[in-house]
Amino acid sequence: MKGLTINEIEVGQSASYTKTITEADVILFAGITGDNNPAHMNEVYAKETMFKGRIVHGMLSAGLISTVLGMYLPGPGSIYAKQDIKFLAPVRFNDTITATCTVKEKITERNRVIMDCKVTNQDGADVIVGEAVLVVGK
Amino acid sequence: MKGLTINEIEVGQSASYTKTITEADVILFAGITGDNNPAHMNEVYAKETMFKGRIVHGMLSAGLISTVLGMYLPGPGSIYAKQDIKFLAPVRFNDTITATCTVKEKITERNRVIMDCKVTNQDGADVIVGEAVLVVGK
Amino acid sequence: MKGLTINEIEVGQSASYTKTITEADVILFAGITGDNNPAHMNEVYAKETMFKGRIVHGMLSAGLISTVLGMYLPGPGSIYAKQDIKFLAPVRFNDTITATCTVKEKITERNRVIMDCKVTNQDGADVIVGEAVLVVGK
Amino acid sequence: MKGLTINEIEVGQSASYTKTITEADVILFAGITGDNNPAHMNEVYAKETMFKGRIVHGMLSAGLISTVLGMYLPGPGSIYAKQDIKFLAPVRFNDTITATCTVKEKITERNRVIMDCKVTNQDGADVIVGEAVLVVGK
Repeated sequence: MKGLTINEIEVGQSASYTKTITEADVILFAGITGDNNPAHMNEVYAKETMFKGRIVHGMLSAGLISTVLGMYLPGPGSIYAKQDIKFLAPVRFNDTITATCTVKEKITERNRVIMDCKVTNQDGADVIVGEAVLVVGK
Repeated sequence: MKGLTINEIEVGQSASYTKTITEADVILFAGITGDNNPAHMNEVYAKETMFKGRIVHGMLSAGLISTVLGMYLPGPGSIYAKQDIKFLAPVRFNDTITATCTVKEKITERNRVIMDCKVTNQDGADVIVGEAVLVVGK
Repeated sequence: MKGLTINEIEVGQSASYTKTITEADVILFAGITGDNNPAHMNEVYAKETMFKGRIVHGMLSAGLISTVLGMYLPGPGSIYAKQDIKFLAPVRFNDTITATCTVKEKITERNRVIMDCKVTNQDGADVIVGEAVLVVGK
Repeated sequence: MKGLTINEIEVGQSASYTKTITEADVILFAGITGDNNPAHMNEVYAKETMFKGRIVHGMLSAGLISTVLGMYLPGPGSIYAKQDIKFLAPVRFNDTITATCTVKEKITERNRVIMDCKVTNQDGADVIVGEAVLVVGK
């Protein structure tokens, strides 16, 4: 398990990771983070919100971006420096979401890559967009 | 469990949440997100990195920011629109970290608040800094 | 995160916590406690019981009482000394239950509070009633 | 998997269940119940308490009583009607605790058994004592 070096990375390269987000994922994420917001944990409350039901923690869905960056592109050995996230639409229980990261820019002299990141759902709608900066090996 | 309305929020208000991040948290987070980066999951590999041991997923630590925003300030009912994150230092297994969010600006006519966010460790060092935007109720 | 002292507590004060109890909660509770009673884990068996389907572990539902006492009233710092529980009705998967604890008596000279506790479901039916005793700070 | 009937139960019968309670159990229990009391989740806070470190949720330890009652004595088919609990001493992470339940009384005409319950740690100290009432089949 070795990530890409700055010379192996090209603008336009892309990788993705897909997962169905279940009720169990949401409960475990609540245990890990302490985030028991009723939008995630209380179906009776959530039905009365604009989302008409429980939704997944935004930061759980955003976590799949980290999966792509840390596992595949640039992969192990890269250092996560920055992540900007816009939450565009809710992720619902049992949605199957795909995080895709694409090399937008590489700054060879500083060993840095800027990645375009997005998370889409099974209908192809963007639920998260953002940008990441990583430091990669020479 | 009701969050604050735009009129109840004042610039300078602050809330925080503290948790010890354990090996179990990291393993569960890996299970939820699929992020099995060896920096988090492989102690033999991790000992050879600049961090000299396994570190916590950055997005797990960042998740505590969401706990503060969603549970306490502005609290339930607010909509998470944007989160910018800079990862400044690693969080190690069994570190006790505190996410603190402070109201930086409120834009009453658009029902929006901008929050200064940071996560510090038990030694007071900043491990994450960032900014969040939330839509809150009138 | 600081709980109330004996002087800040008044008879009649009340706090509550609500959560939808899911299949994942039940499975995780079984994993934690080892309680694999088929009433909770075996749908084929459970359909033949008087409850006509799997039910939630009573002690899981009772656990939400501890959430209210430990998190909100009296909150962090109080010591849980005693809990009496009557199980009145089953909690089914996906029921949304609310634990409510109300100060029934305070014994200032012994730093103790007696709390009336109940857990109700989304239809307002009592599923658990009980009483707790806590030691609180001066 | 069939529990005992009222005629198969004798005063003095006893069953027990033993488990090591880990950090992972505590984190999962927090996710299930929402109980993020810093006594369980924040080592820095917990070190300053009288317990000198994080302790296990009392209701998690009490859950092992339910394991004995529901799995072994009286076992599947019995209905949990009542549980009284006294918390005598803290359970620490990685303690190995044993719940033991002993038939104290049987009320044949009402199909009820009263059980003496206790939870002890690896040093033989009582951490929980209590009494349970169950309805069993004829």
